[in-house]
Amino acid sequence: MMTQNIFKFPAKSEWQSLLTRPTLEKKNLRELVQDIFSEVKLNGDSALQDFSEKFDGVKIEQFSVSNEEIENASAEVSEDLKNAIKQAKDNILKFHNSQKNEINKIETQPGISCWRESRAIENVGLYIPGGTAPLFSTILMLAIPAKIAGCKNIILCTPPQKDGKINPVILFTAQLCGVEKIYKVGGAQAIAALTFGTETVPKVDKIFGPGNQYVTAAKELAVDNGVAIDMPAGPSEVLVIADSSANPEFCAADLLSQAEHGIDSQVIFIATDETIFEKTLEEINLQVEELPRNEIAKKALENSRFILLDSVENALEFSNLYAPEHLILSIENPENYIDLIVNAGSVFLGNYSPEAAGDYATGTNHTLPTNGFARNYSGVSLDSFVKKITFQNLTEIGLKNIGKSVELMAEAEGLFAHKNAVSLRLKSLENGI
Amino acid sequence: MMTQNIFKFPAKSEWQSLLTRPTLEKKNLRELVQDIFSEVKLNGDSALQDFSEKFDGVKIEQFSVSNEEIENASAEVSEDLKNAIKQAKDNILKFHNSQKNEINKIETQPGISCWRESRAIENVGLYIPGGTAPLFSTILMLAIPAKIAGCKNIILCTPPQKDGKINPVILFTAQLCGVEKIYKVGGAQAIAALTFGTETVPKVDKIFGPGNQYVTAAKELAVDNGVAIDMPAGPSEVLVIADSSANPEFCAADLLSQAEHGIDSQVIFIATDETIFEKTLEEINLQVEELPRNEIAKKALENSRFILLDSVENALEFSNLYAPEHLILSIENPENYIDLIVNAGSVFLGNYSPEAAGDYATGTNHTLPTNGFARNYSGVSLDSFVKKITFQNLTEIGLKNIGKSVELMAEAEGLFAHKNAVSLRLKSLENGI
Repeated sequence: MMTQNIFKFPAKSEWQSLLTRPTLEKKNLRELVQDIFSEVKLNGDSALQDFSEKFDGVKIEQFSVSNEEIENASAEVSEDLKNAIKQAKDNILKFHNSQKNEINKIETQPGISCWRESRAIENVGLYIPGGTAPLFSTILMLAIPAKIAGCKNIILCTPPQKDGKINPVILFTAQLCGVEKIYKVGGAQAIAALTFGTETVPKVDKIFGPGNQYVTAAKELAVDNGVAIDMPAGPSEVLVIADSSANPEFCAADLLSQAEHGIDSQVIFIATDETIFEKTLEEINLQVEELPRNEIAKKALENSRFILLDSVENALEFSNLYAPEHLILSIENPENYIDLIVNAGSVFLGNYSPEAAGDYATGTNHTLPTNGFARNYSGVSLDSFVKKITFQNLTEIGLKNIGKSVELMAEAEGLFAHKNAVSLRLKSLENGI
Repeated sequence: MMTQNIFKFPAKSEWQSLLTRPTLEKKNLRELVQDIFSEVKLNGDSALQDFSEKFDGVKIEQFSVSNEEIENASAEVSEDLKNAIKQAKDNILKFHNSQKNEINKIETQPGISCWRESRAIENVGLYIPGGTAPLFSTILMLAIPAKIAGCKNIILCTPPQKDGKINPVILFTAQLCGVEKIYKVGGAQAIAALTFGTETVPKVDKIFGPGNQYVTAAKELAVDNGVAIDMPAGPSEVLVIADSSANPEFCAADLLSQAEHGIDSQVIFIATDETIFEKTLEEINLQVEELPRNEIAKKALENSRFILLDSVENALEFSNLYAPEHLILSIENPENYIDLIVNAGSVFLGNYSPEAAGDYATGTNHTLPTNGFARNYSGVSLDSFVKKITFQNLTEIGLKNIGKSVELMAEAEGLFAHKNAVSLRLKSLENGI
């Protein structure tokens, strides 16, 4: 553990410097990605083929995954893993099903009904990174709410392996979730394909999913081209708050499970008990050595902060300023502190709620706002896959009740045709037509 | 009426060309706006002063509106208009209050509770355009849900008049809605101030509100700087569907009330009855002449489409492809067709539900997705002012129930610290600790 990352009872005036995140060397990829977009827009599939050869080192003749490939995949996944994925699916389904809204018609005044109805975004694109560790869990997090919402076309893009195939766990999970349109294309070119459509890959209305810096830059460009995205991207992070009831072994494991994500991950540990604090630091040093990805985790720990504060209230004040993606409360009676939480993506309460549980299987979504975006964005939920359309129905009485007000306000804004649309109707009602 | 904008029973193969929107001469303002952002970031208030002088032609010494100015404003607004605004406020309050969600705790498996809680976005910026027609109604649409959400700081920016004052109706409406922080600054410099903060104007987490092309470009740049925005902008539009029960006078008035917004507005009229169709065209020609803004309306009509189709079902199919901001159903039993509506911002049912009513006072929000964004965005609602944080609480039993699955999935994704965070806990439970 770097001693320069340890802060004991820092004054609030010093907090600002502790709230900084590792600055990303944000290369300007815009131009490069713009070129990829232009190419894909112009040349469609043939551009995708070129980029796959160039970036993924593989020649793809047929981007769409065949039914045969999907069916064969299942045989390559162990029954244990399949059952695990199914259990996760059930929980995610249950929680996201509970996010449906009843239609709630309100009579704002006699004769004026107003309500909202949800409609699925018709065409959604799910981007799933490939590479050595296939993030099949992200398929669960995106495809399940898309299905509940009733999205008509769920398009999954994921980069092919060197052998031109897709990892079987990805195919199994996609099939389990009812995703039928899977394409072997990754990187910025996949986002471009989803933005414009090609002969093979359909154009979508909204793009979801994580990715490297090229994918991130491409998603920003997709927005400029009228496609919505789930949320802005950034490195992953966790903030753990521990009091004397915490278990240092668990705290260390939770901090490391975030640190292993990438060298730009950040973990923040705040303890209110000095013994727990010291023991957790020791545990981190022990556990990190055992990890296959310990090089990554050690790098991430260099970005990290270990802070001793005098109360849980102060710890939460710090946490709200930091706005962590994940917040773990390893404290006694965590439910008593919930109202103090203002900015966070997902919160884990108590000693038996590790972040890893929520990453996979509690039922909550793991696509969450990072990089301080928990201040202004929610994580992915059923809401992310629908629009809410407002409806209003005015009876003659309803229009009479607000007609005069609308006329006055329209006139004051200088919009006389707006006024007229009401005046004509009021007049016809007076005339008893 | 231009005959080239009239289409009788076009085949579906011709629809694509009828769905086009007026292409915006999208000037590249990015560089100009980037310069404004850099200046404001560097020089704060003094940059704002320079830009106000340059763009608004007025020298502002004190950007924040004083209590005195706010209190004096009320005397300058007629009682009738005040009462109209108050009635609108009550309806908007009622409808947006109805959008609050109860906390809904779900036990996804025994011992695993998951739920979401809403938290206000703490700092929000409302941009209200000035000019000849002060859009005070937009203050109602933005400040009321911000207040219900519980936003801590509601910052309103609006450009000063040439005399350095703010239109009194804007000040009255802001005060009525409980907005206390009002700044005399407009244009891209206002968005820059809200993005970075200056000595006077506070930095915010999310920016709402309409504006000209500079404001629109500035909001895009705000996003690049980590600030959220309400939605992408575009010219306003309405689509009216009329059957034989429609009133041509009303239809014409509704179409014109959209056309008067700006020369880039677009109105689409679809009738299923030829008599109603022809009469509405005649009515438009009559009514447009009476409008003070008839030059604007006539220009907008040139962008518009008047289409005769053979059924309401087909009309709605067309409407869903177009994805209008406003959709008016001047048809018999409009409620029977609601399920067919997939893409629209706000829908007005029946002959006594003019768009103007919803623009001001039914209670629904008038900040809506334009330019086809109704495919992938919702209008502003209470949701726009909150984040939804997920919570999960696992008991020992809960963790035992999913622990094995999490271990398997983490391992399959190559994330061993994730696995370990669960394994350590399962082990401690086995050991009965």
